Amino acid sequence: MKDLGAAPHLIVIGGGFGGLWCTRALERAPLRITLVDRANHHLFQPLLYQVATAGLSAGDIAAPLRHILRAQRNVTVRLGEVTGIDTAARTVKLADGTTLGYDLLLVASGVTHAYFGHDEWAAHAPGLKTLDDAMTLRRRILLAFEAAENTNDATEREAWLTFAIVGAGPTGVELAGTLAEIAHHTLAGEFRHIDPSHARVRLVEAGPRVLASFPPALSDKAAAQLRRIGVDVLVGQPVQSIDAEGYVRGGQRVAARTVLWAAGVAASPLGTLLGVPQDRAGRVQLQPDLSVPGHPEVFVAGDLAALMQANGRPVPGTAPAAKQMGAHVARVIAARLMGRGEELPFVYRDWGNLATIGRMAAVVELRGLHLSGLLAWWFWLAAHVFFLIGFRNRFTVLINWAWAYWTYQRHARVVFGRGDGAP
Amino acid sequence: MKDLGAAPHLIVIGGGFGGLWCTRALERAPLRITLVDRANHHLFQPLLYQVATAGLSAGDIAAPLRHILRAQRNVTVRLGEVTGIDTAARTVKLADGTTLGYDLLLVASGVTHAYFGHDEWAAHAPGLKTLDDAMTLRRRILLAFEAAENTNDATEREAWLTFAIVGAGPTGVELAGTLAEIAHHTLAGEFRHIDPSHARVRLVEAGPRVLASFPPALSDKAAAQLRRIGVDVLVGQPVQSIDAEGYVRGGQRVAARTVLWAAGVAASPLGTLLGVPQDRAGRVQLQPDLSVPGHPEVFVAGDLAALMQANGRPVPGTAPAAKQMGAHVARVIAARLMGRGEELPFVYRDWGNLATIGRMAAVVELRGLHLSGLLAWWFWLAAHVFFLIGFRNRFTVLINWAWAYWTYQRHARVVFGRGDGAP
Repeated sequence: MKDLGAAPHLIVIGGGFGGLWCTRALERAPLRITLVDRANHHLFQPLLYQVATAGLSAGDIAAPLRHILRAQRNVTVRLGEVTGIDTAARTVKLADGTTLGYDLLLVASGVTHAYFGHDEWAAHAPGLKTLDDAMTLRRRILLAFEAAENTNDATEREAWLTFAIVGAGPTGVELAGTLAEIAHHTLAGEFRHIDPSHARVRLVEAGPRVLASFPPALSDKAAAQLRRIGVDVLVGQPVQSIDAEGYVRGGQRVAARTVLWAAGVAASPLGTLLGVPQDRAGRVQLQPDLSVPGHPEVFVAGDLAALMQANGRPVPGTAPAAKQMGAHVARVIAARLMGRGEELPFVYRDWGNLATIGRMAAVVELRGLHLSGLLAWWFWLAAHVFFLIGFRNRFTVLINWAWAYWTYQRHARVVFGRGDGAP
Repeated sequence: MKDLGAAPHLIVIGGGFGGLWCTRALERAPLRITLVDRANHHLFQPLLYQVATAGLSAGDIAAPLRHILRAQRNVTVRLGEVTGIDTAARTVKLADGTTLGYDLLLVASGVTHAYFGHDEWAAHAPGLKTLDDAMTLRRRILLAFEAAENTNDATEREAWLTFAIVGAGPTGVELAGTLAEIAHHTLAGEFRHIDPSHARVRLVEAGPRVLASFPPALSDKAAAQLRRIGVDVLVGQPVQSIDAEGYVRGGQRVAARTVLWAAGVAASPLGTLLGVPQDRAGRVQLQPDLSVPGHPEVFVAGDLAALMQANGRPVPGTAPAAKQMGAHVARVIAARLMGRGEELPFVYRDWGNLATIGRMAAVVELRGLHLSGLLAWWFWLAAHVFFLIGFRNRFTVLINWAWAYWTYQRHARVVFGRGDGAP
């Protein structure tokens, strides 16, 4: 490879699907690329709920960014937190005081949870975006059963055995289904004072149906499958408040010591630093080529992007969409480096939509084809294992799942980590 | 099984090798057993250094106590922290205020790290006893290379690339060997501004040789193997002080941002609550049957026990010794329940001593037989995989190791968890 000392400098913020796919697609481009992330790893977020529910270990779904990109000589991986972007000076500022200049910038910092203006709920209803979040959820779920076992007070026991998941999108449905499986199967026979299968799993949704991004018929099937495995599916009313004791909905208080948040997301605060129009959730509105209005050298990809498809529906905040955007930004940059000035509008290719519901059940929407139940589950499994980064991880994940399938066991039922107010 | 409502109540404090082996050996005894532990899992401590060095995940070496004992109907597993023991009233007090009465008591709460009166070193030189400790070490080791990559100051870079391990017992030797492997092989080619193989790994020991519990000839072989893989073996002088910048030894200051503690242990503070003679490290001195002087209904097993062998050497603080003590206490209790009053003195069976040094090297002392190098390493591997609890774990651990062997990769190179003052 020729000397890149004088090559243009591309900074990619975020090593998720958007940032990583853009970086990898520019492997042969005459660029210096710096990939900045707060974490040392790329995370396969679609399986994060499995870490939260003790089915997989952190290392099964995360790989060091540095290792993934070790052979791509035009990339420098930089562990760091971005605290400022100056689009006039073309610089990015990091928390340790470093300032990095760029010629091209991709902001792919994703989303975080949002509590609809009720930030005080965060302490009582943790969300699920990072490995730390997953460990917090795992600790709270497993320790709730321990607390129920240890108390002599029947009311308190019931509150510890009531789990509420707020939000019935794919993450909420996955968590609810897995929690029901844990209560009814995984923990069977392990306690002496409680019967874990008496636990209630309440999936609470403000909208009229679960999995609102799917066709109504599949939503109905998903709800029926959830009810069959013991989940209380409660749609049509929002949660009004959440505290340490439970939640209020429809004016009624429900005692639930474990409330998990799978409802709202807000764009990464870095979107605001760009000084361009954002939608209500803070997502950045973009030109058709994914550049920022007024700044053709700045791009946004992944969940942080607010984009509409030709059919009037928004491009979803999913891994495939983020990968497509990342790859598209790479194409636009490569074309510009070649001196080609044509417009390259992003077109989202919708390969389908899938969500799993628990043991051996899922729903799949695939270019008009609707699947549910066992067949959909096999499809879901194949797709997720196929897309996991790195051979070793895929293999271990498959073994863990095969084991879990035959034994109902979950191999990562280990609580560690300190201090989030759990019992 | 007959009704155990009126059966004597045995409380076992600690679900490590001593407590768990005693509990399992009493499977058919007419007892009510309560096993109390602060953690929800049994930990295979001999492989904890592999979690600390990112070779294994927490779930690979830990299994829920509740799951291990689910079919043993005379056992109740209780998550809780013991804060008091009243040997006169025969009660145990837990942190949540609960008081449990016992007829028989086994204290098997093990050891923790000790800093020889320098508790202020703890913040700068973390030790390795729990999964939380292992995660702290992993984070500090991996982030030290990141900090070295990010700094422009040559002196600071060198300090980040200097790793000191204090104490050259088995844990210190294992950590040093694995760290050298990480620096020279695992991270090769992944950084752009530093060469990880320039890292220095300093194994610092106050005594005259490494692995003091082995015969001198094997210590020499271990030291030679360590030097061959790039470890600086420094014996014969104690560390005089440790702070955030490094350590002082022999009057000389060494800049090392990562100092790991593998030197001293102190018995669990629960030993003191028994009100009987203890040795300097706080271990409890026992009757030949492992009961506490003056309290034949109270036993101690595992690292907390201070015991001498017939040959005048102390019983070592190892997993096999703890298992033997646990099983012995079970025999004594079973004999008493049968009304047999004879003395049952504990006799330690020394099956040998083994320690691994890094990639494909180990030392083994086995009833007069001395092995070192590759053969010893295979022996070490077989023994450790064989003794791991649970088939699945063994299988996954083997796969991880096979993978690590062929690729030099470590699959759990994932940093998470918050706040221990690491960069």
